[in-house]
Amino acid sequence: MFYLRGMFDTLTIIGPGLLGASIGMASRKHSLAKKIQVWIRDKEKYTRYVNEKWCDNAHTSLINSVQDSDLIILCTPVDTIIPLLKELLPHCKTNAIITDIGSVKGSICQQADLLVQSSQQLFIGSHPMAGSEKTGMEYASEDLLEGAPCILCPTEQSEPNALKIVEAFWKSLKMKPVSLNPSMHDAIVAQISHLPHIVASLLSASLSEIPEESFAFAGGGLKDTTRVAGGSPKLWQPIIEQNSKEILKSLETFEQLVQDFKRNLQANDLYAISEILRKGQNVRKNID
Amino acid sequence: MFYLRGMFDTLTIIGPGLLGASIGMASRKHSLAKKIQVWIRDKEKYTRYVNEKWCDNAHTSLINSVQDSDLIILCTPVDTIIPLLKELLPHCKTNAIITDIGSVKGSICQQADLLVQSSQQLFIGSHPMAGSEKTGMEYASEDLLEGAPCILCPTEQSEPNALKIVEAFWKSLKMKPVSLNPSMHDAIVAQISHLPHIVASLLSASLSEIPEESFAFAGGGLKDTTRVAGGSPKLWQPIIEQNSKEILKSLETFEQLVQDFKRNLQANDLYAISEILRKGQNVRKNID
Repeated sequence: MFYLRGMFDTLTIIGPGLLGASIGMASRKHSLAKKIQVWIRDKEKYTRYVNEKWCDNAHTSLINSVQDSDLIILCTPVDTIIPLLKELLPHCKTNAIITDIGSVKGSICQQADLLVQSSQQLFIGSHPMAGSEKTGMEYASEDLLEGAPCILCPTEQSEPNALKIVEAFWKSLKMKPVSLNPSMHDAIVAQISHLPHIVASLLSASLSEIPEESFAFAGGGLKDTTRVAGGSPKLWQPIIEQNSKEILKSLETFEQLVQDFKRNLQANDLYAISEILRKGQNVRKNID
Repeated sequence: MFYLRGMFDTLTIIGPGLLGASIGMASRKHSLAKKIQVWIRDKEKYTRYVNEKWCDNAHTSLINSVQDSDLIILCTPVDTIIPLLKELLPHCKTNAIITDIGSVKGSICQQADLLVQSSQQLFIGSHPMAGSEKTGMEYASEDLLEGAPCILCPTEQSEPNALKIVEAFWKSLKMKPVSLNPSMHDAIVAQISHLPHIVASLLSASLSEIPEESFAFAGGGLKDTTRVAGGSPKLWQPIIEQNSKEILKSLETFEQLVQDFKRNLQANDLYAISEILRKGQNVRKNID
């Protein structure tokens, strides 16, 4: 595995929110590109971006933002990645490498493969496992990605050198890259990321009827268990939609356990309750 | 509200684990008692305790541990609080004040009232809303309680001065005391503490079939959402048992929402899914 340093003349981040801006900051920190530029939808944000040390230019024209780029990273909500890829491909340099940071990979990689098949560019799907419930550049930081895993999803059609370069890019940002096929990725993240997000949201939503003052008594348990429920529904609804098949499987396993627990509690079966708590404690040991 | 300083000659902590030892450390830091002693079940731990700066003496005899005490704090699992109270009461000084830190208050306060009715001691139930999924003195700290709420559960039978003193005690440890009646306490903590704990355990347990290696890809979301599942089943099973009526109510509300979400996902009703996520996000704003 080689590391990058100054390998790219121009790097473009499409949609620099929390993660995209953090990628930009970290790319500057590790000197991965001479020029780092962004594409933003909202031209009123232009000044905010160009005033950032890591951001050399901000475009509202997609064409201008990609035409000189060696590496383009799509950081927008998952339902906009393919439409944007379709739109930008005809304007990219030959052999430009494009990646994304979408939390679902099956349909994105499949559609991206079809699109690049007839173009002169290369696509490798990525999913950096970093972030927070916050959104927007104001929460971005050059260290957000450090030490976190980054799943890469090459397909049979992927160009081996493009994979090596994208892998080296994430590694140069101090992430831990690992390759999985897209459907394996979607099955795993349904369990370790999408289900926890949904459960946190459901727990939080289930408390909507209790008086606000009650939350003043809450300890760290409620805060941690519901933290990710603060995430943006606009980002999460398309993730859930695109990975619904795998999410349904995990949700059914979870639902079954909720019903078992309730039945045991109704029957005052304390042994069975302890067993479920113990199982949860044992799995938890593997999570940290 | 008055603050205490050196008000107690002798303070006894019954069962100094994570919370009990943290109370001892903070009591020393704020000079709340001349002598701080503990009762421990396991005499092999004697040296560990008496080597602690905050701990002046460690007893394995319950009688010896309480007979000179002005304030006794029961810090053992909730199912042992009433048996220990029964055992120690005949050996306490007249007007000694006894409190506990149990996470359930209804049955404890009711039974404690019956016991102290015919004794010369005073009982006020407490529930400091601090702690972690860790257990044992090794994780205790003098700052663990600082800034956290502490719910006091006086009953009609409670002696007003005893309540004032227990309130001042927690306040002197930099906690935020607030009074609730025991049944109100149990209803609220079922929702803001017991349900989140159970949901975290169920989420964690529902992942028991996935390969351990998958957890290497987990981001902060899974870690936070399942953190409290690491808590001891031995402590939690009796809490759940003693508060089962209120917990069942919250669990049913939660279960209903899980089912709604699943149905909406099966029907690909993205609007309804967004609405649930949005509700969760809104409630979450009140939690922090």
